[in-house]
Amino acid sequence: MSDQYFVIPFDLHNSLVFEAYRQRGFTPEESECGVRMAASASRHGIRTHNALKALHLDALIGSGAGGCQPGAAIEKRPCKFEASQIWNANRKMGQAVAYEAMDTCKKMADKYGVGIVSVDNAFHYLWGGGYVMDAAREGYIAYTNCTSALAEVVPFSGRGVTLGTNPHSWGLPTTEAIGFPIVIDWATSVVSMGRVQQFARENIPLPPDAAIDAEGNPTTDASKAKALLPFGAHKGYSLCLYNEILAALIGGSLPTLRGRSGVEDEKHSTCFFFQVIHPEALSSGAFAQGRGQMGNVKSVIEDILGHGNENCLLPGQIEADGAARSEKNGGLLFTEAEIEAFGEIANDCGLSAWKLENFQPAE
Amino acid sequence: MSDQYFVIPFDLHNSLVFEAYRQRGFTPEESECGVRMAASASRHGIRTHNALKALHLDALIGSGAGGCQPGAAIEKRPCKFEASQIWNANRKMGQAVAYEAMDTCKKMADKYGVGIVSVDNAFHYLWGGGYVMDAAREGYIAYTNCTSALAEVVPFSGRGVTLGTNPHSWGLPTTEAIGFPIVIDWATSVVSMGRVQQFARENIPLPPDAAIDAEGNPTTDASKAKALLPFGAHKGYSLCLYNEILAALIGGSLPTLRGRSGVEDEKHSTCFFFQVIHPEALSSGAFAQGRGQMGNVKSVIEDILGHGNENCLLPGQIEADGAARSEKNGGLLFTEAEIEAFGEIANDCGLSAWKLENFQPAE
Repeated sequence: MSDQYFVIPFDLHNSLVFEAYRQRGFTPEESECGVRMAASASRHGIRTHNALKALHLDALIGSGAGGCQPGAAIEKRPCKFEASQIWNANRKMGQAVAYEAMDTCKKMADKYGVGIVSVDNAFHYLWGGGYVMDAAREGYIAYTNCTSALAEVVPFSGRGVTLGTNPHSWGLPTTEAIGFPIVIDWATSVVSMGRVQQFARENIPLPPDAAIDAEGNPTTDASKAKALLPFGAHKGYSLCLYNEILAALIGGSLPTLRGRSGVEDEKHSTCFFFQVIHPEALSSGAFAQGRGQMGNVKSVIEDILGHGNENCLLPGQIEADGAARSEKNGGLLFTEAEIEAFGEIANDCGLSAWKLENFQPAE
Repeated sequence: MSDQYFVIPFDLHNSLVFEAYRQRGFTPEESECGVRMAASASRHGIRTHNALKALHLDALIGSGAGGCQPGAAIEKRPCKFEASQIWNANRKMGQAVAYEAMDTCKKMADKYGVGIVSVDNAFHYLWGGGYVMDAAREGYIAYTNCTSALAEVVPFSGRGVTLGTNPHSWGLPTTEAIGFPIVIDWATSVVSMGRVQQFARENIPLPPDAAIDAEGNPTTDASKAKALLPFGAHKGYSLCLYNEILAALIGGSLPTLRGRSGVEDEKHSTCFFFQVIHPEALSSGAFAQGRGQMGNVKSVIEDILGHGNENCLLPGQIEADGAARSEKNGGLLFTEAEIEAFGEIANDCGLSAWKLENFQPAE
């Protein structure tokens, strides 16, 4: 890592983020959820979804723009199915909705083996990987997907942006086996539009088949990129499409209208889908060599990472390493530029800004 | 399509396939399942999983080699969860297990909104897309995955084959909206080993990043390809890994031992996972412009395929077109070479071989 990081005590970070959310009108409970997600992202080294990004996004399209409603109540819609719930989130803060949805799924999974929560009128939950990671660490098989606020992706072989970057997140209960949960978490575009803009600023070429230009031709010139491509050709496209169809079944409207405004009698919000499976609901109880279920998972992973694959990574490994680094340093790690940005947030909150000289450089 | 196809009446195909399974010792019920899957695959133009492939595979690693046990009974394992079942398939014919598992999931979904069936000691179910397609056509959201018989795939950035080509199949209830169910169905490798062998024979280059050579370097020379790569770099790798971890939780053993034999006190069989969700278990009931749920799905799909994407395909479109072609011709479509291969099967069964001159060329 080339950037120099500094150690911000957990409490200092959390109290600032809490105050920032409170001042925007979020309830104490919502603000705690905002803190929990931001702290979890930073602790695991997820810089794209830290408090700075969350608060910036909230100002831009959330509570600062009517896209998110502080203090909104989740309305449970009629549902005749015992292991399923359907929620109208009324644009409540996405993190608060997501944590409650995951908890609800876990309770249903405890009884039924599996539980699902579908959420209409949602607002950005930031880092799907964080929710499934927490559930997986508790021993569950967890999944979430959502539609992205804006259509930025073209279908496979298409040229019109009609799909979100629609991410998927899966968490698997592997902590007992390998020390951390496997967390699969990615958008269905090759790169994000934010990455395209960064590459354009820094004059770095895009990977092949990541974007198309105004004429619809693939380009690696970030400054000419006008739309994103799904990863993995038709396979990634189908996974991107999947979220759109699920959202359409839940209550989402046209993807090209999402995150926009101006059309009356329309819905512009995103949808979430959550699912949790209890690991015992899968277990045949019959594992080779007399192993238990988690011992079997450990043996299978060792087999996969053996045979010349000893240097391969598991999904979630980088995040686990990030968490270990945070723990070792006794705080969250931020760059000088990030600490300055937190300073501006502190100013906006009427708090004193963080001073770089007060913080230790991270190991 | 460059190949000339001939029209085989449905009954003629089905009676031959039924007899072939019966003579291998499968029960009438199992044989009917084998027929159903083979007819469905051929009807939808899935030539890689037609009766010829199914019977060849069965001879090679199935009932002809002890890998599949005709007449085996499914044993339901203890499971305390109401919307979940765990089965020991005892290596029963995969198609029979898969159809019954999907039916069981549908019944659970009718009550709980979602239902899952996990299957240990499974034998190849051939075309996962066929099961989810049938369920989707009935209006359900269906999913299945399995581990492949052999490890042929290396982890992302690895060089040892420790993963199956582990496919995923999703079916979505879009028939009312667009005339056919969206069916997402693919292996997590870029290509199959069968495709590599075909390309080597025909001296056709592989796509980039599909295979590595003996030194672990990517190669497009099919004759030098020794192992398959996951599609979509780390993203496809994670989806390939997902099936392995689910199988490990169910009861599968080491992927490098799967489909092999010789190690005592070991398990060499694959695992299946099935899931069905009832579409009403997702519906908020609140769709824009007063649309109903399926009308909303239709509008969303029209939006995605508008805006310059009119020529894009939906997953399942090719299969739907295949089915329309079969229906128009009033039978299943096979090439001369395939009809000859069916003739050999007929001979093995003591039946008279199909004669090409008896069949009409397909339109």
